[in-house]
Amino acid sequence: MIIGKVIGSVVSTQKDDKMRDMKLLIVQRHDHNNKPVEEIAVCVDAVGAGLHEMVLYCTGSSARQTKLTEGKPCDAVIMAILNSWDIAGKEIFQKERDA
Amino acid sequence: MIIGKVIGSVVSTQKDDKMRDMKLLIVQRHDHNNKPVEEIAVCVDAVGAGLHEMVLYCTGSSARQTKLTEGKPCDAVIMAILNSWDIAGKEIFQKERDA
Amino acid sequence: MIIGKVIGSVVSTQKDDKMRDMKLLIVQRHDHNNKPVEEIAVCVDAVGAGLHEMVLYCTGSSARQTKLTEGKPCDAVIMAILNSWDIAGKEIFQKERDA
Amino acid sequence: MIIGKVIGSVVSTQKDDKMRDMKLLIVQRHDHNNKPVEEIAVCVDAVGAGLHEMVLYCTGSSARQTKLTEGKPCDAVIMAILNSWDIAGKEIFQKERDA
Amino acid sequence: MIIGKVIGSVVSTQKDDKMRDMKLLIVQRHDHNNKPVEEIAVCVDAVGAGLHEMVLYCTGSSARQTKLTEGKPCDAVIMAILNSWDIAGKEIFQKERDA
Repeated sequence: MIIGKVIGSVVSTQKDDKMRDMKLLIVQRHDHNNKPVEEIAVCVDAVGAGLHEMVLYCTGSSARQTKLTEGKPCDAVIMAILNSWDIAGKEIFQKERDA
Repeated sequence: MIIGKVIGSVVSTQKDDKMRDMKLLIVQRHDHNNKPVEEIAVCVDAVGAGLHEMVLYCTGSSARQTKLTEGKPCDAVIMAILNSWDIAGKEIFQKERDA
Repeated sequence: MIIGKVIGSVVSTQKDDKMRDMKLLIVQRHDHNNKPVEEIAVCVDAVGAGLHEMVLYCTGSSARQTKLTEGKPCDAVIMAILNSWDIAGKEIFQKERDA
Repeated sequence: MIIGKVIGSVVSTQKDDKMRDMKLLIVQRHDHNNKPVEEIAVCVDAVGAGLHEMVLYCTGSSARQTKLTEGKPCDAVIMAILNSWDIAGKEIFQKERDA
Repeated sequence: MIIGKVIGSVVSTQKDDKMRDMKLLIVQRHDHNNKPVEEIAVCVDAVGAGLHEMVLYCTGSSARQTKLTEGKPCDAVIMAILNSWDIAGKEIFQKERDA
């Protein structure tokens, strides 16, 4: 899974039938030091993430393993909202502190 | 999913039987600021996209989850035409304005 | 799918049983302007492609969706020979002209 | 599979139901000479790995082939803890020596 | 599939049950001119490859299509040992000559 930040959203009225009513968010990848990386993914949101939240997203066929995305033409899904992470015992990100 | 622009199309009369009658479009990846990226994909079109339209495409096994591509040797499919997207509340792309 | 040119072939007498009698071609990726890219793939040939022909190849699990490659340890398959492609209305490659 | 070092962990209370009780570790890729590479993955831990341990992780649909991850939206799993590896007969990493 | 050279091996006594007794080799990618590329993969060996042999390996879900790797958390498998390959009619690698 990949750490990312929700930075935007996409609107599409003309899409594959199976994608009707799917919220599509733009997520920017972050590295383990919480610096943004030049890589984005448009993800289906399976957990109710909001703008600027730090999340985990999952790609490939595994992105179809949530109830929401099963059998859908979806290759990236947000499957967790992050509270915190630490590297070698040091807290790099903490939601209440850093939001 | 990946944001891209339809920039061309491909003609092939000698192809795998399952790919008969598939429209194959060349899509150039764009970043979230709508700048073209040096990466293209040849995609099956599942939504009737036209030249120069901004689209979303889906890759890997998820590209076989549309009615059109089920069971086919296809690893990239256009599954949405974009109306607009915004980053941090600012509208970056808007179809009527930017087309 | 990816645009590429058949540049060579591979010989292997000691391989997984399921790969017996599979023709294995070396394909170099080309960009949409028909310039070679520093990336090659060894592909099973499902359409009878010849040396120097421009082709499309498909990767991942989708490479197992041809009759020839079903259930095989194959992650790249040539599934189309290209006649031509154009970018923004301009013909970049045309088989008879450019071969 | 990819060689990596467990460098941290992630906390998430709001995640997809199928991911409840999954330990999520941050793994940094290492090359064959045991130098860290600028690439991390957040992995489910299927083998009880600890901080600073050298591990193998597996990605894509294969990451769902452990008992723990079957049917889950998980695209990376730690499936082995490394004792040692050698390159051309020279032992590059040995757990007791290098830990 | 990818051309590579077996450069080493990995030892792990603590791994996922399904990976018991799997020989794990370190393979370095080579380009079509037989120059090593800065990319390695740890692969299950399905064909009895030895140190320094040139091989083909297969990745992703296709790496689970050999008898040995079926249903296993394995995303890379050696599925052929190379005798030779040629580019545009010129023999680049020939096992007896170059080994």
